[in-house]
Amino acid sequence: MPEIRKLDIDTPALLIDLDRMEHNIKKMASFFDMQFSNLRPHTKTHKCPVLAHKQLQAGAQGITCAKLGEAEVMAAAGIRDILIANQIVGPDKIARLANLARHCDIMVAVESRHNVADLSMAARHAGSTIRILIEVDVGMHRCGVKSPEEAVSLAQKILESPGLQFEGIMGYEGHAVMIPELDDRRQACLKSMQVLIGARDALLKSGIEVKIVSAGGTGTYNIAGSYPGVTEIQAGSYILMDAKYRSVLQDFESALTILSTVTSRPDKETAILDAGMKAMTFEFGMPELVGVAGAAVSFLSEEHGHLYLEDADPQVGEKVELIPSHCCTTINLHDRFYAVRGDRLEAVWSVAGRGKFA
Amino acid sequence: MPEIRKLDIDTPALLIDLDRMEHNIKKMASFFDMQFSNLRPHTKTHKCPVLAHKQLQAGAQGITCAKLGEAEVMAAAGIRDILIANQIVGPDKIARLANLARHCDIMVAVESRHNVADLSMAARHAGSTIRILIEVDVGMHRCGVKSPEEAVSLAQKILESPGLQFEGIMGYEGHAVMIPELDDRRQACLKSMQVLIGARDALLKSGIEVKIVSAGGTGTYNIAGSYPGVTEIQAGSYILMDAKYRSVLQDFESALTILSTVTSRPDKETAILDAGMKAMTFEFGMPELVGVAGAAVSFLSEEHGHLYLEDADPQVGEKVELIPSHCCTTINLHDRFYAVRGDRLEAVWSVAGRGKFA
Repeated sequence: MPEIRKLDIDTPALLIDLDRMEHNIKKMASFFDMQFSNLRPHTKTHKCPVLAHKQLQAGAQGITCAKLGEAEVMAAAGIRDILIANQIVGPDKIARLANLARHCDIMVAVESRHNVADLSMAARHAGSTIRILIEVDVGMHRCGVKSPEEAVSLAQKILESPGLQFEGIMGYEGHAVMIPELDDRRQACLKSMQVLIGARDALLKSGIEVKIVSAGGTGTYNIAGSYPGVTEIQAGSYILMDAKYRSVLQDFESALTILSTVTSRPDKETAILDAGMKAMTFEFGMPELVGVAGAAVSFLSEEHGHLYLEDADPQVGEKVELIPSHCCTTINLHDRFYAVRGDRLEAVWSVAGRGKFA
Repeated sequence: MPEIRKLDIDTPALLIDLDRMEHNIKKMASFFDMQFSNLRPHTKTHKCPVLAHKQLQAGAQGITCAKLGEAEVMAAAGIRDILIANQIVGPDKIARLANLARHCDIMVAVESRHNVADLSMAARHAGSTIRILIEVDVGMHRCGVKSPEEAVSLAQKILESPGLQFEGIMGYEGHAVMIPELDDRRQACLKSMQVLIGARDALLKSGIEVKIVSAGGTGTYNIAGSYPGVTEIQAGSYILMDAKYRSVLQDFESALTILSTVTSRPDKETAILDAGMKAMTFEFGMPELVGVAGAAVSFLSEEHGHLYLEDADPQVGEKVELIPSHCCTTINLHDRFYAVRGDRLEAVWSVAGRGKFA
């Protein structure tokens, strides 16, 4: 049988190390085997229906998306239980959402009475039911209701709105997930969970059933995931990881690299790569060169990467691997994953949700 | 006739103001009407065959691409005279390049004898002719030969290589194009052009014909474009511009914006937008909010933009426009342009070269 070797893949290419990814999926699934809560992986990280199905097969109870366009891609791939952890605003998107609810069990975050009214009208018009979580601001100060009273009042409005089904609440402690010191991260996360469970308790006290309490990210999966009352965790990056998250959390392995070719050697201390800003993001720092000692990424221009060579001598034509600093935004630059087992290519998977930010 | 208004376009969306873009195309074409040199617009900026054709119709003599994949897209759209202003390295890409040369007049930059040998062998194998420019390092210290002697020796090698046609030289003064002060920018550019013309003169002195001397970018189009001996300019951003380039150069108008919707108002001083890092880049600074006084982009998270409202009160559902800080990388996040005339949508154009970094 002819096989394609990893180093035969043309560059720049986004590689998944399958053994490591499968380890990550399994490790996260084992954690939730021991918890009352479950995993609802955030697929904004990989935007790939193949990977979402793998996460579901490992036991996840549904998936999370950031945008309606991503949810449409996942629904088209046969996935049913989808949370859009975001407000859907504007008549076009609300109509699409209401129609999507006829094809899958879509759930969406809300924070305002006005939005609830719009969603209800659209669902009635489409003849569908939209499942609703109230987003609670748990300290990130981005989106969500600001008090338990507001949550109760909004839930009452949802309960009396035809076409909507109130499912519970969510809160994202995005300000906590990347705090480097575990103790500090734990404190920040616990504080957020207190706010979230405070909102739940107010709802319960008002006689409102709360089936879902959704929270968490990769950096806080085990803190939020074992917090009493939290029912599901929206971790995303754990499946592939990146250099930034690995600096915070060692529970999961680096399974994502960029394969790139050295295209020029302007001088003894510099190598030029064929992957620049359009193939790798750097808002969380430079990508991390692996497998080449004595060299590091010094700079990215638009179409080129720049290696500073302290004690390395890669030749033009040689291929190198780099760990992205931020997996979510780097993957969003690519159309496909090259899934590699050891040094052999095993599959090519479409990043079908790439660019679906609307 | 039903018409679609600009504010009816769903968001996030990448808008082109057609009147302004046409002004930019015309203004650049008028400049070159008065010069010995001509324009070879760099299409890495827009990656859109429709726009490349508009530039050619306005008088440009060919186009520039950064990557082979972009050139394939442009050739498929019927464009013939294409320069890849980059080294093409590795057997897969060199074979694709040699095959592409059977369908269009492809030209590529080289800097090494080894690469010339590979290109020659591939062209012979494909039965095609690849046009060659020698890249000269004009001070950016990224790619290119380092001396006139090296250029002469490499040109001699190209001239005796079957399947290759030596056309001339190129140099990109990327270190100069964004220098804020015009005088400093001019000095840096002139220094680079001296290096480039020095290489040309050495070639001429060796009896080697130099048809093309290619250089320049948007920030130096008129400096390099009027430098004696330079035959063509690779400016790209001028067609749409961005906030960063507008801070350096006012010759061209801002024709590119992101249309985005306010999705949340967490407090009096903050508005949340539906466009974040996945719709707008920020390596050159935050996008610039237009048409809303007393507010500015303070922060981008992955899926959200954050506005700081000093003295503005945009409502949830309201649409706002932002000028990207860096057009090239922002466009690369989008699948299509919405081309708007005044407040009406006139066309939707595919960013067909998006993600074609291989």
